[in-house]
Amino acid sequence: MKVLITTIPFGDKDRLPLELLESSNIEYLINPLGKKLTEDELADLITDFDVVIAGTEPITAKVMDCAKNLKMISRVGIGLDSVDLLAAKERDIKVSYTPDAPSPAVAELTIGLIISLLRSIHVSNSELHSGKWKRFFGRRLSEVTIGVIGVGRIGSRVIRRTKPFGTPRLLVNDTNPSKRSDLLDFKLDWVSKEKIYKEADIISIHTPLTSVTKNMITKEILLSMKKDAIIINTARGGIINEDDLYEVMKSGHLSGAAIDVFNEEPYTGRLREINRCLLTAHMGSMSEDCRTKMEIEATKEAIRFLSRKPLKSIVPKEEYLVQQEGLS
Amino acid sequence: MKVLITTIPFGDKDRLPLELLESSNIEYLINPLGKKLTEDELADLITDFDVVIAGTEPITAKVMDCAKNLKMISRVGIGLDSVDLLAAKERDIKVSYTPDAPSPAVAELTIGLIISLLRSIHVSNSELHSGKWKRFFGRRLSEVTIGVIGVGRIGSRVIRRTKPFGTPRLLVNDTNPSKRSDLLDFKLDWVSKEKIYKEADIISIHTPLTSVTKNMITKEILLSMKKDAIIINTARGGIINEDDLYEVMKSGHLSGAAIDVFNEEPYTGRLREINRCLLTAHMGSMSEDCRTKMEIEATKEAIRFLSRKPLKSIVPKEEYLVQQEGLS
Repeated sequence: MKVLITTIPFGDKDRLPLELLESSNIEYLINPLGKKLTEDELADLITDFDVVIAGTEPITAKVMDCAKNLKMISRVGIGLDSVDLLAAKERDIKVSYTPDAPSPAVAELTIGLIISLLRSIHVSNSELHSGKWKRFFGRRLSEVTIGVIGVGRIGSRVIRRTKPFGTPRLLVNDTNPSKRSDLLDFKLDWVSKEKIYKEADIISIHTPLTSVTKNMITKEILLSMKKDAIIINTARGGIINEDDLYEVMKSGHLSGAAIDVFNEEPYTGRLREINRCLLTAHMGSMSEDCRTKMEIEATKEAIRFLSRKPLKSIVPKEEYLVQQEGLS
Repeated sequence: MKVLITTIPFGDKDRLPLELLESSNIEYLINPLGKKLTEDELADLITDFDVVIAGTEPITAKVMDCAKNLKMISRVGIGLDSVDLLAAKERDIKVSYTPDAPSPAVAELTIGLIISLLRSIHVSNSELHSGKWKRFFGRRLSEVTIGVIGVGRIGSRVIRRTKPFGTPRLLVNDTNPSKRSDLLDFKLDWVSKEKIYKEADIISIHTPLTSVTKNMITKEILLSMKKDAIIINTARGGIINEDDLYEVMKSGHLSGAAIDVFNEEPYTGRLREINRCLLTAHMGSMSEDCRTKMEIEATKEAIRFLSRKPLKSIVPKEEYLVQQEGLS
């Protein structure tokens, strides 16, 4: 039985996931290209592996057709946009994921990005390093309206972390607005996305990437935001149209943006020209503890599968429905 | 009666403080050099003014001797290191300040700087803008030990703001360790500064600049910190020796630093060479609401003085004692 580990880094801060595989006598290969694989690269590589411990590279029907022995995909993380779930189901390939582990790390990064943008930390830092001293005015969290689109595991944690700062006005939107009983001590305004675009000073996106959220934020929508609004995407590349964001920010609209996720990673695009656009390298889940937890959970699930034990975090039916609805 | 306003920007986001002066028929001049004044520049400028609404420029005995009419100093902010209180007292010059207004803004910036450093937001941003993609590992607040030196108005607020992140281990030090009854719901370890230097992952300084805290953090102390420790100074330039910090970081010690305050501002020194040293332009108090509140409070106090009304935020005796002890 052979396991392909495509996500990198893996076993880097803590070797335990690799040791678990070794002590179960499972042969494994870690992504030899050292970067996020394209569909073709993955198709070339996957050939005779039984299980993939996967990152966010595209696991399409084409890839599965090249993987004659593939019986299970264990995603290190929560997003399933990269896995063609329906194609997997047709081929009787099981799919598991680690939906809870990354959330605290992504939420904490998001708060850091929000404060950076509100206080122009990133701009002051780059200006000072190149010799320019300017004291930027900023705003505090309690003085602004935050719009959270997607109030699930991560969005709800972002909201909870604003509390000791003096909670801001909170405009929220989710496809299932009733589900957050853990946010009862917050005054949430459940509103349309359009109202968030129009009224929020900070807009933070915490939805999955689906056929509905792909290109959800276009030029027209960016221009409907306040001139000094701030937008943050720590969810998935493709939800905000990158070309549109570039054009709109280049024209002077929006006071800042923080983008951690991109259409194509590593990112080499034009947003790099815009100083007030804070760019990070898909680091939402990259805290040592959360990353290690994700790797261990995904590895244990793969080992359970290979030992014919019951799986613990199999992807639920609703996720298949999301992709099915997107296709219909 | 003439008022000199040395701090800049002033009345920029909200004209109210200027309107208050105008409606009281008080003549004023805003710092015409548009930068933080040196002792000589201030001495040249101050000549016949009755009141100074002051920033952090040095108001020394020499300056006061050039200010024949000076009767009152109204500091926009909390720090008094820039004012020679004993020289003021000898000349019967009253000194007021705004100790509470800046605290929430400084504490919020500090949390932003902590998360930036823990997750390498600033390094990833500058690398990505120059074309380099690297996913940095980080740590979450709940996984580290934070050392807070100076648990007053600002230090205590920093501690409170860590709560929803899963409070870290907190090592704290203050000259008066008993005074924070508002932190009873936190488990604080009151320890020596030396223990903080040795054991903390993050060291954040929230003391005033006094003869005791000047050059408090030297090369020897920086080298006694963990190799991957992080140090933050949003208090006052001069508390950390800048040359020592440069040398120590250049040698590879410390994983990051965030410096918002400098010996000489505008800052043009060598820390700019160090990418993992996050530099901001003395922006701790620069949130629109706090800055406006500080300006209005300091202006109202100046107007009260000029209208012979009782002062509301006169600098207390203890601050004079701090400077007296420093001199003895």
